[in-house]
Amino acid sequence: MLETIRAAGRIARIDIAKAAGASPATVTAITSELIAAGLIEECADPPLQDAKRGRPRVALKIRGGAHLVAGVKVSHHAASVVITDFEGTEITAREMRLAENRMTPAKLCDEILRSLDEACAAGGLALGDLSGIGIGIAGLVDARRNFVYWSSSLRERNVDLGRMLEARVHCPVFLDNDANLVAKAEHIFGEGRNVDNFIVITVEHGVGMGIVLDGRIYRGVRGCGAEFGHTKVQLEGALCQCGQRGCLEAYVGDYALLREANLNSETDHKDIDSLFAAAGAGEEIAGSILDRAGRMFAMGLANVVNIFDPSLIILSGAQLNYDFLYSDKVIDQMKRWIVQVDAPIPEVKVHGWGDLMWAKGATAYAIEEVSNLTVRELAANAG
Amino acid sequence: MLETIRAAGRIARIDIAKAAGASPATVTAITSELIAAGLIEECADPPLQDAKRGRPRVALKIRGGAHLVAGVKVSHHAASVVITDFEGTEITAREMRLAENRMTPAKLCDEILRSLDEACAAGGLALGDLSGIGIGIAGLVDARRNFVYWSSSLRERNVDLGRMLEARVHCPVFLDNDANLVAKAEHIFGEGRNVDNFIVITVEHGVGMGIVLDGRIYRGVRGCGAEFGHTKVQLEGALCQCGQRGCLEAYVGDYALLREANLNSETDHKDIDSLFAAAGAGEEIAGSILDRAGRMFAMGLANVVNIFDPSLIILSGAQLNYDFLYSDKVIDQMKRWIVQVDAPIPEVKVHGWGDLMWAKGATAYAIEEVSNLTVRELAANAG
Repeated sequence: MLETIRAAGRIARIDIAKAAGASPATVTAITSELIAAGLIEECADPPLQDAKRGRPRVALKIRGGAHLVAGVKVSHHAASVVITDFEGTEITAREMRLAENRMTPAKLCDEILRSLDEACAAGGLALGDLSGIGIGIAGLVDARRNFVYWSSSLRERNVDLGRMLEARVHCPVFLDNDANLVAKAEHIFGEGRNVDNFIVITVEHGVGMGIVLDGRIYRGVRGCGAEFGHTKVQLEGALCQCGQRGCLEAYVGDYALLREANLNSETDHKDIDSLFAAAGAGEEIAGSILDRAGRMFAMGLANVVNIFDPSLIILSGAQLNYDFLYSDKVIDQMKRWIVQVDAPIPEVKVHGWGDLMWAKGATAYAIEEVSNLTVRELAANAG
Repeated sequence: MLETIRAAGRIARIDIAKAAGASPATVTAITSELIAAGLIEECADPPLQDAKRGRPRVALKIRGGAHLVAGVKVSHHAASVVITDFEGTEITAREMRLAENRMTPAKLCDEILRSLDEACAAGGLALGDLSGIGIGIAGLVDARRNFVYWSSSLRERNVDLGRMLEARVHCPVFLDNDANLVAKAEHIFGEGRNVDNFIVITVEHGVGMGIVLDGRIYRGVRGCGAEFGHTKVQLEGALCQCGQRGCLEAYVGDYALLREANLNSETDHKDIDSLFAAAGAGEEIAGSILDRAGRMFAMGLANVVNIFDPSLIILSGAQLNYDFLYSDKVIDQMKRWIVQVDAPIPEVKVHGWGDLMWAKGATAYAIEEVSNLTVRELAANAG
């Protein structure tokens, strides 16, 4: 019911009953409990009109002040934090450079806490004011268990990062793969609004994927599905940072491009910017590197279409600042490599937002999970 | 509600109410309508016991005699037909050799009708006794529209096969990709019972896939998802029967193996049997062909695990009579090529059933769709 109210923004009880297929009496009973618990509130201004009889109706909305939540995106170089109220209204946002790219679990906890402290301070808040913290991190994360099997930000495997953080923050922590939180952000704030089946592909240091089916993130049974970057595009192919060969990421990730770009002692490309500029200036090797990356990426996109047949693919992430992964040539190749049917092909949209939007996805996740926890508590107290 | 009764087999009204979250009064009203429409019936024998008070309860069950349905699987060489009652009890089954492998739409309609006539005759029935016909065919099928974009059984693209057949059989026809109907059969009768998230991969002439998520077949928005056989495993690789290059099918389908096996004028393998025997007898080229097919298939399986992270993968189809696609070596390669997490890997089960079980999946689909139609008619008459 909270989800219905949140999705609607403002909604009358009778419309909640219709949406939920419940009786008006049931809705009145449940909404009374939610009001008593401070999660929702009545708002008479502006009044909703009863379509039939013209009588004004009292609308219900989420009570923004009910809870404060934080969303954190841990990227290769930085931690980005957004703090919002329970309606999702942003209170403060903050980016902090990380001490190292790859850390021990204890050090990563320190860094996340430091970024949260800084963000809270900037918003005139204390850490203790937060009711929940959503965190997105690259790698293999079992969101149900708050558990990190592997992350490029961590020096160790199998880290119970959720529990480590919860011991220090005294509020629940909700951990997820960062690409899932981008998909969540796209679904709630971005290009995926009102789209119930879409795929998000993120290209940054690595390649991630978020799958939204019937309006929900699809995570797989162990919490490590959607590993698009580690699907193999070449038998015994290029070495990937995961230690295996032939992963898509080993052809399009920034590290993959730079290791090729700097093969000759003559070149010293520090970043993709430099490689991209060289290709633009007509340098043949630079052009060939980006060209192959585009071709491999087109093949990966075609495979996604052949498997999911989605209505929309959203490309997101820092590498999308360069067009070699979504040039007309790449999209044309994708079109040629999907199964050919006389029906419209999926739309491909590029949405190159920054880390703060990823963090906003983490706040959306935290709001959802804090809602679930609160409702479960209410039910337990009632029962 | 029909689905609940079908899944339970026999169930009391009060348990339907619990399962559906509806009031007993609502359940009584709806079941009365379904009984009046002849879709379900009371059965007192043996009586269900009320757990608390020991009073016998009247159970409801699907009325087998309500409808007869047929399921047809069109394969490369044959059409297999199963006719069942509305409870799914088999009345007759029949396999018929097709006149040609690839036909005009009119000829395929003739052949399907001939197979249905033969099956009806064998069961002492007439075509007019059927309330619905489910048909599984290889290729790109939009099940929602009963439309075939492309099939290896058809000489033309974009065939409105459902409508063509319905003009001649006078009952609804429900067309689907054959692999989806295998997935349906596995879910209802086979290895996928009580498993809500699993993947079926079929290897016959081509390579197919059925995706079951949350207990439902996932079809994609245009009805042509799950095209696993046409995902690319090699950029600009081997030529596929679809006309593109590098499709998995072009490495593991029977035609792919035979074109390699018969490269030399010295060899003349007519079928996979012969190739498999040669490999078993230590013939090096035959061994190398099957070995590469196994490696490519392992790579495809690993990609499925990396995307879906399912609890179960079921391998099904005629080619599964030979173990080169699921030998220990193939499964070991799959294990090495999936993302490595300290959690159990998906189970891989081999279920090499014949065409009649595929046809049984088509009957299950027909029963489901006839149920939906009947319920919709009831609602329309009531409204």
